[in-house]
Amino acid sequence: MTAGEFKAGQRQARRLDLRSGRVEMNHGAGGRAMADLVDLLFRQAFDNPLLNQANDQARFSAPQGDMVMTTDSFVISPLFFPGGNIGSLAVHGTVNDLAMGGAEPLYLSAGFILEEGLPLADLARIVEAMAAAAREAGVQIVTGDTKVVERGKGDGVFINTTGVGRVLPGIRVSGELARPGDRVLVSGTIGDHGVAVMSQRQGLAFATELLSDSAALNGLVATMAECAGPSLRVLRDPTRGGVAATLNELAHQSAVGVQLHESALPVRTEVRGACELLGLDPLTVANEGKLLAICEASVAEPLLAAMQQHPLGVNAAIIGEVIEDPLQLVRMTTAIGGERVVDWLHGEQLPRIC
Amino acid sequence: MTAGEFKAGQRQARRLDLRSGRVEMNHGAGGRAMADLVDLLFRQAFDNPLLNQANDQARFSAPQGDMVMTTDSFVISPLFFPGGNIGSLAVHGTVNDLAMGGAEPLYLSAGFILEEGLPLADLARIVEAMAAAAREAGVQIVTGDTKVVERGKGDGVFINTTGVGRVLPGIRVSGELARPGDRVLVSGTIGDHGVAVMSQRQGLAFATELLSDSAALNGLVATMAECAGPSLRVLRDPTRGGVAATLNELAHQSAVGVQLHESALPVRTEVRGACELLGLDPLTVANEGKLLAICEASVAEPLLAAMQQHPLGVNAAIIGEVIEDPLQLVRMTTAIGGERVVDWLHGEQLPRIC
Repeated sequence: MTAGEFKAGQRQARRLDLRSGRVEMNHGAGGRAMADLVDLLFRQAFDNPLLNQANDQARFSAPQGDMVMTTDSFVISPLFFPGGNIGSLAVHGTVNDLAMGGAEPLYLSAGFILEEGLPLADLARIVEAMAAAAREAGVQIVTGDTKVVERGKGDGVFINTTGVGRVLPGIRVSGELARPGDRVLVSGTIGDHGVAVMSQRQGLAFATELLSDSAALNGLVATMAECAGPSLRVLRDPTRGGVAATLNELAHQSAVGVQLHESALPVRTEVRGACELLGLDPLTVANEGKLLAICEASVAEPLLAAMQQHPLGVNAAIIGEVIEDPLQLVRMTTAIGGERVVDWLHGEQLPRIC
Repeated sequence: MTAGEFKAGQRQARRLDLRSGRVEMNHGAGGRAMADLVDLLFRQAFDNPLLNQANDQARFSAPQGDMVMTTDSFVISPLFFPGGNIGSLAVHGTVNDLAMGGAEPLYLSAGFILEEGLPLADLARIVEAMAAAAREAGVQIVTGDTKVVERGKGDGVFINTTGVGRVLPGIRVSGELARPGDRVLVSGTIGDHGVAVMSQRQGLAFATELLSDSAALNGLVATMAECAGPSLRVLRDPTRGGVAATLNELAHQSAVGVQLHESALPVRTEVRGACELLGLDPLTVANEGKLLAICEASVAEPLLAAMQQHPLGVNAAIIGEVIEDPLQLVRMTTAIGGERVVDWLHGEQLPRIC
């Protein structure tokens, strides 16, 4: 074979059967099959100038001021669920963790761990959902990595996304900044993501389809920052472990207690019903498009009004207040006037919900 | 139970049995078991002020000038191998990808996907190796994430590390900058990592123990940048797919050919022997502590001398040159005076080598 014939053979070989192909071990071997997967699927979907540098790293100008960095691996099962798939979720989750740091999300990395045998058509749907979610959120996926593990050593696909962002001017949010007297707000109905995924897993059918709330919250956070400025003290998204785990973490970080009012908690009727059926508490169920905010009491009402003007904050509510409590507990006044402690779960309730 | 008793019970429950415990599904559930794992293992090992912010994201001042960002997931099997483990490898790999962008590594994230049943003692060894590798390389692990998947849906542990760094002043390296006449250098012996791992997998014993070369190359790169400045054009570490895949990628990116000289390639005798036994070509075997550099011919000799002064460049060599070639091939003059094309592998040779 001459060098010319050799090269012609190489060129012919560049292909990816996105209709009926499957992930093979050589898609992760660092050779030409991997280059084909990267070039013909990932680069085409995520197309942007930084990714197109085609090095093992992306180079960009540092933003001015403070930055934040966050990472999340996604192992949700099933890969496709009502309202999204692991790809859109992987973008929303990391965009939201940047936004919860008071930052404008800029750049994401994407690391794929593929199981041998995964249909390439499924991978393509997932990658396209990532690309669409990134476009909507205004972030670029600038660098990536692909590994393949043998059948039975993974579960379809796991995705890590890591993000960096630029801190918005004029605000400073952090988990230790809650003070007694502050108000606690939630941006909308709770438990939608966890219940949608669990319903699908259990094969439950409801009269109304339950959809995950998976969404990018950076636009809502920009609105909130503009309204409340430095009076906004804490932002956190109640994902795994739900509102209960997140508020317990924050109570511990700020060394305060939290008093919730059950009657103020926005919960969809269908979610409440499904939770009863599944033996779940909406407070411990994961959300993927909601945030908890803690702010000075004086800005709570205008902040709530600003949130309700945003499409992702229509159902926002003030759900409680920060109190002094040496025990750092989260307590709730129940709908029937009693009081209970809202613990985070020690055991496993919703495995692989994100 | 009073609130006080309740809280006392919570405090008692904070524990992690690092001697005989195993990863359970609740270690990934977002509740207290996960908080214990994070606080008692990850935070203690990686201890630094940014991680200790204990938010879902790390906040830091943006460096001046240009930055790079890179990501890598590690799925190596076995988790422990001669010369390192998946933890040290996960730090070295990402530090090196930052260094290959001409950057000083600053911050890493760490995302863990744990398989139910993994001994916590193994996880602790891995985490301690990560912490030690990070300290040696001068980087901080500033944010992390932990997920758990059911037994049989993972393989012990997968780790994603993503890093950001600050571009070193006075250099500009990128894969498309190689020009005919430039020289190609390698920082040391090739094939050590892949052969060490494969030997362990196959249960081969050699008279001399083969060790992975896994190491952080940022110090060597700083030395090289200082010596060669802008005459250093390309840096890349030949990991999966080895020197063959990396040079083929670079030839394609720069639209050039590469001419190698087999007699100049540094290969350990034991590695050459093991490769013959295992049917491997050292050129396609993964390295984890070596780099390829392409520089202007005029600085090749002084750059080589500078590299050889560094502990990780003692066996550095000039192994070839960049040539004009519309076919963008990598060719090699063999030890016996012939010439062959050095292709990258299409098929799978060394699955899960990193």
